[in-house]
Amino acid sequence: MRATVMFGAGDVRIETLPDARTIEPTDAVVVVSRACICGSDLWPYKTMEHSEAGRRMGHEAIGVIESVGADVRSVKVGDLVVMPFAYSDGTCTFCRAGLQTSCIHGGFFGVVGMEGAQAEAVRVPQADGTLVVLPVGEDDALMPSLLTLSDVMGTGHHAALAADVGTGKTAAVVGDGAVGLCGVIAAKRLGAEQIILLGRHPDRIALATQFGATDVVSERGEKAVERVRELTNGFGAHSVLECVGHDLSMATAVAIARPGGAVGRVGVPQHEQIPTTRKTFFDNVTIGGGPAPARAYIEELLPDVLEGRIEPGRVFDRVTDLDGVPDGYRAMDEREAIKVMIAF
Amino acid sequence: MRATVMFGAGDVRIETLPDARTIEPTDAVVVVSRACICGSDLWPYKTMEHSEAGRRMGHEAIGVIESVGADVRSVKVGDLVVMPFAYSDGTCTFCRAGLQTSCIHGGFFGVVGMEGAQAEAVRVPQADGTLVVLPVGEDDALMPSLLTLSDVMGTGHHAALAADVGTGKTAAVVGDGAVGLCGVIAAKRLGAEQIILLGRHPDRIALATQFGATDVVSERGEKAVERVRELTNGFGAHSVLECVGHDLSMATAVAIARPGGAVGRVGVPQHEQIPTTRKTFFDNVTIGGGPAPARAYIEELLPDVLEGRIEPGRVFDRVTDLDGVPDGYRAMDEREAIKVMIAF
Repeated sequence: MRATVMFGAGDVRIETLPDARTIEPTDAVVVVSRACICGSDLWPYKTMEHSEAGRRMGHEAIGVIESVGADVRSVKVGDLVVMPFAYSDGTCTFCRAGLQTSCIHGGFFGVVGMEGAQAEAVRVPQADGTLVVLPVGEDDALMPSLLTLSDVMGTGHHAALAADVGTGKTAAVVGDGAVGLCGVIAAKRLGAEQIILLGRHPDRIALATQFGATDVVSERGEKAVERVRELTNGFGAHSVLECVGHDLSMATAVAIARPGGAVGRVGVPQHEQIPTTRKTFFDNVTIGGGPAPARAYIEELLPDVLEGRIEPGRVFDRVTDLDGVPDGYRAMDEREAIKVMIAF
Repeated sequence: MRATVMFGAGDVRIETLPDARTIEPTDAVVVVSRACICGSDLWPYKTMEHSEAGRRMGHEAIGVIESVGADVRSVKVGDLVVMPFAYSDGTCTFCRAGLQTSCIHGGFFGVVGMEGAQAEAVRVPQADGTLVVLPVGEDDALMPSLLTLSDVMGTGHHAALAADVGTGKTAAVVGDGAVGLCGVIAAKRLGAEQIILLGRHPDRIALATQFGATDVVSERGEKAVERVRELTNGFGAHSVLECVGHDLSMATAVAIARPGGAVGRVGVPQHEQIPTTRKTFFDNVTIGGGPAPARAYIEELLPDVLEGRIEPGRVFDRVTDLDGVPDGYRAMDEREAIKVMIAF
C-alpha cells in the first residue's frame, strides 16, 4: 500500500509499504476514504531531523473497515467509521472519565513507530474503544465535517470547555488555523456572546466571522493585548482558547484573560514553561487543556454535524489525492491553504 | 496607637504611630481583638530590603468597629467583625462574581503603603463590602477558628476548589503550614476520600491526621513523587493543593497530579514561570488558584465553624500580645510555631 512518510524537515514522500494488517486481536484495518493534514504536522515539517526510517504521518481519518481481529466486537467489516487521533481501549479509568488521550493502553497515530492515516489503509489498535460508526454513506456531502471529528472540531471544543466558555461570556480565540476556527464554532455553540478572533489572514477571518466571531484583532503581542482590553471594558476575556502553541501566543493568551478567567490551550506547546506565573496567580486565571479526547466528544458533536447546525468541514479549502500530499504540506506551511483534505 | 512595622529582612518592630481614623466615607476603623502572623509574611521577613519608612504588617483580624465613615451602611459601631485579607467594594463585576481579590476598588492589607492588622487598630476601606459581622461575643471560645476565616481557612478552601476536590477523589496537599493544614480540612469537608499530606514536621503531621489526612509523604522532590504514585495506583492525585509557592513545591505539585487532574495553587509563587508545561499539557492537568477571595467564603464556612464541624483555629499553637510579635515572626520562620495568634 502507499503511505505518507516524513524523512526530515520539508521532506515528505509517498512510499510503498507493506499492507496494513491486524497484529493484535483488538486491531482493525481501515481502508481510508478521507484523511487530512494537521497544523500539528507542520511542527515536524519545520524541525524534524533527518531519519532514514522516516515517520509515518497522519492521525485523522474516515474509512471503511476491511478486517478485524478476533476480539473486536463493536465494529465490523464494511462499517464506515471515524478514527480519532488517539486510540484508546474505552474501558480503563481514564477512558471512563472521558480522557481517552491518557488511556492506559492507548497511544497516538502518526508518531514515531506508529502507523499513520495519510495512507491507503491504517491499522487501528483498540478498535472497539477507538472507532465510531457513522450513519451515512461514503459519498455523503457531510464527509468533510465528519472528518473534523477526528481532531480539529473536537480540539476546538476541548479548548472551549477548558476555557470554561458559557452563555453570555466573552471568548477570545488565539490563532486562526483550522483549530482556532473550530474553536470559534465551539465557543458560539456553547453560548459565548462575544467571540474575539486573534488572527491576520483575510480568508480565515472571513470564515471565522461566518462561524460566529464578533470581533477580529489582527495586531500581535502587546498591541493585541491592548486591543482585546479595549473590546472588553478593559477587563479581558472570560475564556481564552489558545490554538497555536507558541511562546508568544501563550503569553498573549494569558495576558488577555480576565481575572477569574480561564485559558484553554490546545496548541501543542513549543515552549518549556508557562509564562508569567505571577499574573495568572494574582488574577486567579486558570490554565487548562491539552490533547483533546476527541473520542469523548464524537457522540456529542455528531448530531450537530448531521443536522447541519455546525459546519466545521468548511475549514478544508483544498482537496488532494495521496500524490498531492507533499504539496499539501507545503501549501499549509506557506499559509496558502487553511487545511488540506486527502480524498482517495 | 501601636502597630507592627517591618523595616527589612528579620527586622520587625512595634512602633507608635498616629491612631487609625476614617479617611474615605466608605471606611471603618476596627479596634483589633485578634490578629495573627501569616506564612506569607515570612517572605518579606526573609528577603525585604531595608526601608526607612517600613511596611506595616498584618492582614488577618477580628475586631470591634470603633467608627464608620458617612457612607457605611451594613456595619455599625460596636459590631464584632472579621476582616478578610483583601478589602473589596462588594458591588463591582468581580465582587459579584465572587472574586473579591480582583475588586476594581479593592486592595490588600499589610502591603507597602497600606495599613496592617498586626496593630491596635486598623482602617478598613470599603467597609460595607469587606467586613462580616460575627454573631458571637469577643471572648468566644471559637475566636481562633473564626480568625482563620480572614485568610488561612478561606485560602485552604480556595485551593481545594481550584484543585476540583470532590466526593471520592484523592487529594494531595503540598505543604504542612497553616494553609496546608486548612487545605486538609477543606479537602475532607468537600468529600475527598484519600488525603495525602506532603510535609515533614511531626507536630503538623499529627494535626493534619486529626484533620483528616489519610497518608503522609515526608520525602521531597522525585522521591515524594514516587511515593504519591505508590499511594495512588501509579496514577497520581486527582486534586493537588499547592500551599507553599516554591519552585520545588510547584514542580512536585504538577508531577503528582493525575492525568485530567487539577493543581490549585495558593502559595504565593516565588518563581516566574510554571514548570514543565509539556507534562501538564499532555496529561491535561489544569492549573488554577491564586489569592483566595476569602470574603466570598466566609458565609459558607461560618456555620461549620460555629457548629464545630471544622476547627481550623487549632493551627494556632502560640499566642502572644503585640510586644511578642517580633519573636512570633522568628518562631514561625524557625518552624518553632505553626501559626502565631496575637491577642489584645
